[in-house]
Amino acid sequence: MPTLTAADTIRILIATDSHVGYAERDPIRKHDSWQSFDEVMQLAKSQDVDMVLLAGDLFHDNKPSRQAMYQVMRSLRMNCLGDKPCELEWLSDASDIFDKSFDHVNYEDPDINVAIPVFSIHGNHDDPTGEDSLCSLDLLQVSGLLNYFGRTPQNDKLDIKPVLLQKGQTKLALYGMSNVRDERLFRTFRDGHVKFFKPGVQHKDWFNLMAVHQNHHAHSETGYLPENFLPEFLDLIIWGHEHECLIDPRQNPETMFHVMQPGSSVATSLVPGESVPKHVAIVSVTGRDFKVEKHRIKTVRPFVTRELVLAIDERFRGLAKVKDNRHKLTSKLVEVVNELIEEAKAEWLTIQDEDDQPIKVPLPLIRLKVEYTAPDGGQFDFENPQRFSNRFVGKVANVNDVIQFHRKKTGISKKDNAKKDMPEESILASMAIDNVKVERLVREFLTAQSLKILPQAPFGDAVTQFVDKDDKHAMEMFVNESLSSQVKELLTMHKDDDDLESAMDNFRARQEALFEAGVLKRQKRRGKLKPRPQIWDSDMDGEWEDQPGAWEFTDAEDESAAPATKRGRAALGGSDDETSIFSAPTTRKAPAKKAPAKPRAPPKAKAPAKATAKAPARGRAKAAQPSDDEDDDLVMMDAPPPKSQPRRAAATRGQQTQLNFSQSQAKTVPRKELSDDEISDDDDAFEPMPSSSRRR
Amino acid sequence: MPTLTAADTIRILIATDSHVGYAERDPIRKHDSWQSFDEVMQLAKSQDVDMVLLAGDLFHDNKPSRQAMYQVMRSLRMNCLGDKPCELEWLSDASDIFDKSFDHVNYEDPDINVAIPVFSIHGNHDDPTGEDSLCSLDLLQVSGLLNYFGRTPQNDKLDIKPVLLQKGQTKLALYGMSNVRDERLFRTFRDGHVKFFKPGVQHKDWFNLMAVHQNHHAHSETGYLPENFLPEFLDLIIWGHEHECLIDPRQNPETMFHVMQPGSSVATSLVPGESVPKHVAIVSVTGRDFKVEKHRIKTVRPFVTRELVLAIDERFRGLAKVKDNRHKLTSKLVEVVNELIEEAKAEWLTIQDEDDQPIKVPLPLIRLKVEYTAPDGGQFDFENPQRFSNRFVGKVANVNDVIQFHRKKTGISKKDNAKKDMPEESILASMAIDNVKVERLVREFLTAQSLKILPQAPFGDAVTQFVDKDDKHAMEMFVNESLSSQVKELLTMHKDDDDLESAMDNFRARQEALFEAGVLKRQKRRGKLKPRPQIWDSDMDGEWEDQPGAWEFTDAEDESAAPATKRGRAALGGSDDETSIFSAPTTRKAPAKKAPAKPRAPPKAKAPAKATAKAPARGRAKAAQPSDDEDDDLVMMDAPPPKSQPRRAAATRGQQTQLNFSQSQAKTVPRKELSDDEISDDDDAFEPMPSSSRRR
Repeated sequence: MPTLTAADTIRILIATDSHVGYAERDPIRKHDSWQSFDEVMQLAKSQDVDMVLLAGDLFHDNKPSRQAMYQVMRSLRMNCLGDKPCELEWLSDASDIFDKSFDHVNYEDPDINVAIPVFSIHGNHDDPTGEDSLCSLDLLQVSGLLNYFGRTPQNDKLDIKPVLLQKGQTKLALYGMSNVRDERLFRTFRDGHVKFFKPGVQHKDWFNLMAVHQNHHAHSETGYLPENFLPEFLDLIIWGHEHECLIDPRQNPETMFHVMQPGSSVATSLVPGESVPKHVAIVSVTGRDFKVEKHRIKTVRPFVTRELVLAIDERFRGLAKVKDNRHKLTSKLVEVVNELIEEAKAEWLTIQDEDDQPIKVPLPLIRLKVEYTAPDGGQFDFENPQRFSNRFVGKVANVNDVIQFHRKKTGISKKDNAKKDMPEESILASMAIDNVKVERLVREFLTAQSLKILPQAPFGDAVTQFVDKDDKHAMEMFVNESLSSQVKELLTMHKDDDDLESAMDNFRARQEALFEAGVLKRQKRRGKLKPRPQIWDSDMDGEWEDQPGAWEFTDAEDESAAPATKRGRAALGGSDDETSIFSAPTTRKAPAKKAPAKPRAPPKAKAPAKATAKAPARGRAKAAQPSDDEDDDLVMMDAPPPKSQPRRAAATRGQQTQLNFSQSQAKTVPRKELSDDEISDDDDAFEPMPSSSRRR
Repeated sequence: MPTLTAADTIRILIATDSHVGYAERDPIRKHDSWQSFDEVMQLAKSQDVDMVLLAGDLFHDNKPSRQAMYQVMRSLRMNCLGDKPCELEWLSDASDIFDKSFDHVNYEDPDINVAIPVFSIHGNHDDPTGEDSLCSLDLLQVSGLLNYFGRTPQNDKLDIKPVLLQKGQTKLALYGMSNVRDERLFRTFRDGHVKFFKPGVQHKDWFNLMAVHQNHHAHSETGYLPENFLPEFLDLIIWGHEHECLIDPRQNPETMFHVMQPGSSVATSLVPGESVPKHVAIVSVTGRDFKVEKHRIKTVRPFVTRELVLAIDERFRGLAKVKDNRHKLTSKLVEVVNELIEEAKAEWLTIQDEDDQPIKVPLPLIRLKVEYTAPDGGQFDFENPQRFSNRFVGKVANVNDVIQFHRKKTGISKKDNAKKDMPEESILASMAIDNVKVERLVREFLTAQSLKILPQAPFGDAVTQFVDKDDKHAMEMFVNESLSSQVKELLTMHKDDDDLESAMDNFRARQEALFEAGVLKRQKRRGKLKPRPQIWDSDMDGEWEDQPGAWEFTDAEDESAAPATKRGRAALGGSDDETSIFSAPTTRKAPAKKAPAKPRAPPKAKAPAKATAKAPARGRAKAAQPSDDEDDDLVMMDAPPPKSQPRRAAATRGQQTQLNFSQSQAKTVPRKELSDDEISDDDDAFEPMPSSSRRR
């Protein structure tokens, strides 16, 4: 085994969910999102990494403001261009990766000096929309500032081809799968319509890195991407979309690959997941090994959150039975908030560089969540939450929502609850007006009407497109399309069919059904907003997609809803320190004892690992049955020719020598063994390659 | 006089008003705008020019679609980047020109190989809006693809500093003044608040080129920029905004500078001005001389328009008295349209290269304008115009508005006319619904209400911003600002002032007045949409700003309304041919006889030359009186240091030798002579420098 050196190490800065543009109209927070993105890009430059990998939601808005686009372009140009030659050798066929005008990676463009190429998939916030299926990343790509890869032009048939890069003797296969609506992706995997392509030669030598942007938690039974759906040959998954920073890779005990969830670089909702210290990582890949270096993001506005249950908290316990307790209650709550503010400041100061100027601490984000169910016979009497929050003007950044009240959920379902006319609940509901999804409003409104012509579900979808994706032509397109199909249909009627109304009703019903089946959606546009999950809770603020491990006020039977977070946080342990290093070979040994000894079932037949507590519904039942469908989900590619010479690549190139690293002892669990020959020939292999056979 | 060669010649491709994104949702025309822009950029590359100058409205929409932005970025990157070194030496202080992050011209960026720098001012369509005052050109600038110059951050105080460039011995001072609302600009000039800065050294050697984007015609008395407001030291003005192509420079007989109006590269309205063959120009500047090479844009969709006056046209004359003439009338009109279609095709074919593939002629744009006033006792009976137009589906591109009917205007003013309940008029009006400006709708609506709190004019302005500039926060900002000032005002009331209502009314009235005075506007945002001019005619389609010399159906007293066009077109003469060359020295002799012999009055005291036929209103009266205000409008700059070496500039640089060309014989009309010393010392010169003293 030859000794690998720094010249054989690919250093990758990993970040995701920068949400540039978030809160850009908030007078206090407006610069937060791009400041943190800029910090990350500056880090890439100062740390002199070989490349940057982003896992989606670079932008918060589907149509970013000019300011947001300007700031991103500025940060990229300031930090990623430069004289330093990029040492990565490009080995892919670029037309496999980029499907628009400029079908080469930006650092091979003779007219732009790219020192640090940035690769990004799209997320659910910055996905392609509109007739032309362009997204903001296309603009960054065409201006030469970024490489947008892992496109998912078809929702229900995914061909995932890697970017192949080499530096010295290290070979990197970079897979990307941009965001797809979770339910659809789940189906597509289940139906075996996801194909992973692998380099056809030296398949044992590649480090296989993948970026995804999907729900990590089982929000609903099929509304997420189970880790186990991804093939075992992968080494490391970068999981975008979830905002909680779980930067330390966690090994999946079944597939043996590692999963890193970097989290967002700006808090887009005030839930505990967003208060976890935010980090990015530099992953250094040498041969088949990798190590992780964490970097705390220092510009992040301090955010502290706490939950109080008044009935049991010692400071509040007795108050419910005190008459006219409002004043006392308020002053005690103010006390708590002031503590949180101090805590936030102290925390922020600890992470700043000592040699900086006298530091001005940014106003913190504070969220106090209060469960106010009173013991029998008592009552808590509150100040209006907004007025309470306004007491902290000049002291916190979120002056309107410092406090949030809620009551313990009972066994009564939410629907029933909503029907009950409880005054407190409805007041609270009205305060949470910002959190009501437009989709729901529209649905409720349309349900109350009786539409004669326009089908309701696509109507709601069009309104959602209009609002969430800022697609001002969505309504026009929808109305035009609906009317013209309706008219076409009516023209085919026989003259004696004079029951026009029922004919129209029938047609509309068919349109609804088609839409439900996804046909209309697929035909017209790609990459829609995902429906909110079943566990939607209007107490939560922000968007549901961004709710990493939000508080769950559920009865015991619901407790399995977010197990991934819990596991992940447990794995995080005490390793918050910036200097802590995660070294792959070491950690990979540890979880070996958890590894299942039997061969895995093919992914398409795999039941979602985390949805076990939920009812075994239609989807599950299907999933449990191995499909007859023989579609392959893993394809060997032809040998990638060293297609083009990087203009300024300085690294001496290895001979693509066969490398045999003892990287994954932990992975050598007994499995069905395949010889190398079998693998090479098995062009239409149905099963993902068991890693043991390729990792000796 | 040293002999100047090609190495001393700056070749500039001049184009404007590409309106990329225009009609992008029209199924037939959607690619037109960017195809033509791309043709222009390809021409820049194939003709190997030194630079490109655009005079505004590169984009049609203030917030261009992703597709529009993508196409522009693509064209720029494909054609303007490259290995060829840019031979222009940059002599300005870049911070005078660029006020954002990247304060250098793009071709001096060490990380981008710019072969052909593009310089652009903004127009009224792509002006900066919103809190951050960014526009689309800022995005192109920050991505390194374009140089956005001639910013006008303040509407009422303009400091115009030139970009100073040198190639060999030719020195180019490039002035830019991005679009400002015409009325305001008129006032700013009149009040002497426009300062032109000139290089302090070798002031006789500079060729002074300027780009503006304003009304060229006297739409209203102060709603345009009179040529004579611009200083005489300029040599050539590139006039953007007007869509009629008047590519041959026309000399202003008073100021002696030349004016070129390149026109748009896509027809945004179906008026005769847009049907003038569209050209761009390559201006070659050598020393103080320039010559012009015209290039026809070949991708422009053919457009032919004709006007028929039924009462006098020989084919239709008798028809009015025929009973039930609809069928006959229709078939004759179809005949005319078919003639126009053939004409369009033939014209288009003549301009295509012969060696191209068998050519498919694009569907033409056809507009037949019909004046249908019938002789006494007769009547013309029409088919519905839209139905008539639909007869040409598959034969024309504009299938909904091939024909337009109107009646001869009488002496009755439009308002009176509107009040009369003439059935034909109102039907026509309803067909022209697309042409109704939102501003007018809002005004009419608001006038019908009685607003208690919100001031009406800023309300209308906010709605206009929302609609025309796609500024989705305009309403929010307006309401917030209005309410908070209203509340602040009411809080200052004495307790015994109990007439709340009248206090509110008063305050609102003051807000209205402030807005009218422009204060609110200036404070809140910059670069608003201009109000439509007084001569607005709802028969016209498209936007009024884009109406170059639209048909005027006026009585004799209105005929002076668009004289500039007529003069321009006369000057154009028979020189439509692509190969015709305009050589400055030759043509400059011709108009000498027209030149006024007396020294010019300072521009601020100058009455608008073209508004003579209109009533001498308030503005005029003021303008005619020389102001006491001693503000200078021409400032000498310090000697520009040859600040930086272009990275790859290959040209050997001249010694900045004093050059004395006998360029402008025609300009040596007797004037007040100033010595060079006088000029150099006269740092606060009030008058623009008479050209004769500096052009020996």
